[in-house]
Amino acid sequence: MIGWSHASAPGSLLRQIGRSALTGTVAGRAARVLLMFAVTAARFDSADPLSALELGERPEPSPPDGWTTITVRAASLNHHDVWTLRGVGISADRLVVHAVVGDPGSAGVADETLDPARSLLSERYQGTFAQRLAVPSRNLVPKPAALSFEQAACLPTAYLTAYRMLFGKVALEPGSTILVQGAGGGVATALILLGRAAGHRIWVTSRDEAKRERAVTIGADQAFATGARLPERVDAVMETVGEATWSHSLKALRPGGTIVISGATSGSMPPADLSRVFFLQLSVVGSTMGSRDQLARLLRFCAQAGVRPVIDRTMPLDQAPAGFEAMISGDLFGKVVFTL
Amino acid sequence: MIGWSHASAPGSLLRQIGRSALTGTVAGRAARVLLMFAVTAARFDSADPLSALELGERPEPSPPDGWTTITVRAASLNHHDVWTLRGVGISADRLVVHAVVGDPGSAGVADETLDPARSLLSERYQGTFAQRLAVPSRNLVPKPAALSFEQAACLPTAYLTAYRMLFGKVALEPGSTILVQGAGGGVATALILLGRAAGHRIWVTSRDEAKRERAVTIGADQAFATGARLPERVDAVMETVGEATWSHSLKALRPGGTIVISGATSGSMPPADLSRVFFLQLSVVGSTMGSRDQLARLLRFCAQAGVRPVIDRTMPLDQAPAGFEAMISGDLFGKVVFTL
Amino acid sequence: MIGWSHASAPGSLLRQIGRSALTGTVAGRAARVLLMFAVTAARFDSADPLSALELGERPEPSPPDGWTTITVRAASLNHHDVWTLRGVGISADRLVVHAVVGDPGSAGVADETLDPARSLLSERYQGTFAQRLAVPSRNLVPKPAALSFEQAACLPTAYLTAYRMLFGKVALEPGSTILVQGAGGGVATALILLGRAAGHRIWVTSRDEAKRERAVTIGADQAFATGARLPERVDAVMETVGEATWSHSLKALRPGGTIVISGATSGSMPPADLSRVFFLQLSVVGSTMGSRDQLARLLRFCAQAGVRPVIDRTMPLDQAPAGFEAMISGDLFGKVVFTL
Amino acid sequence: MIGWSHASAPGSLLRQIGRSALTGTVAGRAARVLLMFAVTAARFDSADPLSALELGERPEPSPPDGWTTITVRAASLNHHDVWTLRGVGISADRLVVHAVVGDPGSAGVADETLDPARSLLSERYQGTFAQRLAVPSRNLVPKPAALSFEQAACLPTAYLTAYRMLFGKVALEPGSTILVQGAGGGVATALILLGRAAGHRIWVTSRDEAKRERAVTIGADQAFATGARLPERVDAVMETVGEATWSHSLKALRPGGTIVISGATSGSMPPADLSRVFFLQLSVVGSTMGSRDQLARLLRFCAQAGVRPVIDRTMPLDQAPAGFEAMISGDLFGKVVFTL
Repeated sequence: MIGWSHASAPGSLLRQIGRSALTGTVAGRAARVLLMFAVTAARFDSADPLSALELGERPEPSPPDGWTTITVRAASLNHHDVWTLRGVGISADRLVVHAVVGDPGSAGVADETLDPARSLLSERYQGTFAQRLAVPSRNLVPKPAALSFEQAACLPTAYLTAYRMLFGKVALEPGSTILVQGAGGGVATALILLGRAAGHRIWVTSRDEAKRERAVTIGADQAFATGARLPERVDAVMETVGEATWSHSLKALRPGGTIVISGATSGSMPPADLSRVFFLQLSVVGSTMGSRDQLARLLRFCAQAGVRPVIDRTMPLDQAPAGFEAMISGDLFGKVVFTL
Repeated sequence: MIGWSHASAPGSLLRQIGRSALTGTVAGRAARVLLMFAVTAARFDSADPLSALELGERPEPSPPDGWTTITVRAASLNHHDVWTLRGVGISADRLVVHAVVGDPGSAGVADETLDPARSLLSERYQGTFAQRLAVPSRNLVPKPAALSFEQAACLPTAYLTAYRMLFGKVALEPGSTILVQGAGGGVATALILLGRAAGHRIWVTSRDEAKRERAVTIGADQAFATGARLPERVDAVMETVGEATWSHSLKALRPGGTIVISGATSGSMPPADLSRVFFLQLSVVGSTMGSRDQLARLLRFCAQAGVRPVIDRTMPLDQAPAGFEAMISGDLFGKVVFTL
Repeated sequence: MIGWSHASAPGSLLRQIGRSALTGTVAGRAARVLLMFAVTAARFDSADPLSALELGERPEPSPPDGWTTITVRAASLNHHDVWTLRGVGISADRLVVHAVVGDPGSAGVADETLDPARSLLSERYQGTFAQRLAVPSRNLVPKPAALSFEQAACLPTAYLTAYRMLFGKVALEPGSTILVQGAGGGVATALILLGRAAGHRIWVTSRDEAKRERAVTIGADQAFATGARLPERVDAVMETVGEATWSHSLKALRPGGTIVISGATSGSMPPADLSRVFFLQLSVVGSTMGSRDQLARLLRFCAQAGVRPVIDRTMPLDQAPAGFEAMISGDLFGKVVFTL
Repeated sequence: MIGWSHASAPGSLLRQIGRSALTGTVAGRAARVLLMFAVTAARFDSADPLSALELGERPEPSPPDGWTTITVRAASLNHHDVWTLRGVGISADRLVVHAVVGDPGSAGVADETLDPARSLLSERYQGTFAQRLAVPSRNLVPKPAALSFEQAACLPTAYLTAYRMLFGKVALEPGSTILVQGAGGGVATALILLGRAAGHRIWVTSRDEAKRERAVTIGADQAFATGARLPERVDAVMETVGEATWSHSLKALRPGGTIVISGATSGSMPPADLSRVFFLQLSVVGSTMGSRDQLARLLRFCAQAGVRPVIDRTMPLDQAPAGFEAMISGDLFGKVVFTL
């Protein structure tokens, strides 16, 4: 099963984190177990987020009507999880759609990402870094047989985000040239794999030579140092870096080109350069997560095109702190997946 | 005739300005006159642009093959003309498409505004503030009988810009709510008139209470002080102000909404607020001028909907300095038109 | 209140018809009345549909949770209602979204018209031709003060259909030329009013000279005899006639033009003329009803643009047979509205 | 070089045919040769088109200004060429854009396929089945090194047509399900290859079991007998067959789905089934050839995705009659290419 999930328990400083993609099998309805192993945010610490991580036993979820409990097999780590430890975005009332991976399927839901009433479910429910998890049944879709539990656990957050950026937010005919700013993160590697699998020419930037080399290995046509002059103007830029690359992204576009942005890890307030935007008739388009329909198409796309998510490392859930440490240090190329 | 025109003579400090909309009748081919009255930029002066204006005799244009000389009847003033006096944008090699108004018609041209080879013709040719003007014949379209020469002279720059912003750059069904930032300028009044004539609810902001009142008089549903909290989020914002209103524009949009921008008179470098853009999935879309097809539809639209451009004042071309002065002081509601 | 409603009682030959638009006020929850006046389909008769109409007392609706009972003030007649009397489309399991007009408001529903699970609610629920009616509460929207109950009763079926055809199914900039096939029906008059109010040039065809004249009176730019050669090719054709006009519609389009079709009253099986479709790169786009969001924008559009539905005749509900007769004979220009 | 070319000489019954894709090297400007080998249509014969073919010497082309003569290396056969022998479409004044393959490059041209003034150049110029050919220089693009002359000769007609159908006329996110009607023709095999290379799930129909098997071999997910019931409704249908499959195509679509059509080899006049079109909100979209920009993206797409056109057989130009015979008999899977 793959689907949407959410994180953290309400009314408790002990927040069971792991906001997103995981893999599991659907548990029997009458789950008797009272305690399970889980990784939680014991508190918030903006300076030393790792110190807020706690491993131990937590109550099993008891799903309301219309929810399903699944036995988690794999769950992937996202930047959001580090932000949770830091206490960022936790008080806001926003939905962050996440994903679970398991067995049986479920039915239709429209795009909720524009719903003004959406709320961050991680404020109210248990997260994915646990032995068992309850999610709304409609949020579950079948795991494709061709993907391992670890691979499938990567799809619903990073890969769905990349899918919508590339295919839902801009209309590019195959053979277009797309610049991906940043080469190592989960979304950036997803952009390279998915963009290339759809027939585009992918150019990548990174400050790190090793990451540039790996980007070419997984399908990028060329990789450049951050801010480098490109051989020609591109049709579109995929942005998740923000301030550090924004000026370069605007200058990289051909007249009429588009930047799609789904994150700003280096900062959110670069100068907007409005004159360039209007004079060259550029577009800047924001994107967040994706719809259930898009997740279904992403799965079929991976099956048809042979796409397999790039996993930097897989580790048992009880070694979660080491995974968080790698993400905080930026020393990753692809996803971190925890298994159970 | 209405069409595209351009400004300034090459290789000369005496630049005949008036980059845009004008009205005229097609002259006989064998125009014998050697000198004509014209308004020119004798030099560039960023501090005192008015001092650079010169009125006097200039050589008649001698059109190359495929060009037509028209006798100018009316020409409207645009911010670009002030910038020319200030020396801004004159060295750059960009096309600014402008417009002429006269009698007989001409044939099809695609959207040139995305052509990377476009050049600012005002670098090479005479401008519109003169008794006679040569323009490429294909750039001429018939003046609708229902519009006066003065009214028609407003269409090809300010109204065409507004038309593309509202109808070519965002897909809004009639009955949508659109915020227009700034109420007095030529493009802003065009946005109010055209948006309302297409059935949208138009909200306007201005620092000036008198302009807010006039905005409601010409069709705005409501007018607000600059930066004021709006009754609800809007579907789209039309921006020509830039820095002074950018933050308000971003906050005014509903999730998934769009800002269309065609100018930034108050500055081009506000903070981009990328987090808001991606989290609410906003779009920022640049726009410049319009295509010949769009000009033809604009004319039919004005005829069908009874739109008549708002003209602040009409004056003989030999009083051009007073018109420039009014524009520089910002003391305008609608267009300034010079007649001959 | 305006909203969606539906027609006919299940398990009964006595079908209370009136599938669509009506006007009313919200009744007190504890409606005690046991019987009310209603117009029903006593049976189906394809040859003599009028004979199947029955006027008399019917049980009051008892709304389930989430439904609201409203007191009907006005309800408009649609071709669907005649088809119901003929027994057409009654056994199929399709949703036909209709509309009610009353007082208090309600909240958001997405576009259901593509839902494969949609069902014709008239199979299960009471129709609108009755003193009282129960509808899902979320299907109710406030009636604009500027419209009378009779006018508002026309909007949710004929005018919403026309709105989606013109603005949701094709992207036409104002000033485009649109051909409306047929001039008298409820949807055709709505297409003329709404298309003109959005700034388009509307051309109309009809076999009936009087209807052609009235079409021009309500805003059509020109009216032509059915099948007549047009002055020039059009950007789009709005079709509800079908077989009798299809060949003309295809020939009327400019290269790249679009036919939007929402009905085929004269027959559904004209030759498709595929060579013309592909050689001139035409589009044929089907349309059915509209979404709740579109209904909200339609109401705002009518308010901003001063659109008032064209009503051919208003009559008390107990004279419904005469209204049906006029529709069957085709002797209408605009809508028939029943009042209570 | 690859580019656009055209067929047939004016004022002569001897029409040098081969309307489309070919491959060559740019000849020296001062081409002295007076005669060259060519395949021409000596006359038109609708019953026995093969009898109209003539092989022999023809005058060398003498290109006007702005045209380039290239030495043909390979040229592919299209159904149009058979139609030329039959005298179909020859008198009409339509542009059929074709393609040449050679060496040096050329510059920008917009989409001409909607130009009402377009004309069938094969009425006026020499076709591609000859040793040398003159084409407008701007219609030439560089041949990608990765493709052979024979492969490249397939791209500008069949593959460009398929490219525009799949990517220019409908917006499908990767992982969509697309039905291709007919499995063996040049455009159908192109649709399978290109659709699959962009990550879609391709379903194919054919009456011929061997062709169904080959379709799966080159990338189709499943192949079905013509008219067979499909496992589920599809997002889009690609049509080139017409009458024989039209009803099946309409029934195969999910609500809101799209048929893209670029040909109708089995006939053009099936019943249109307008009720299905409007009730399920289907779209039917015509498509013809493609733009120069699309050809450039197609070449990059083939390079990035490793697409290599499927060639049924390659033969020397002097054996052209055998190639025509295979096309007329329908006994092909992929393209016929003539070499020189």
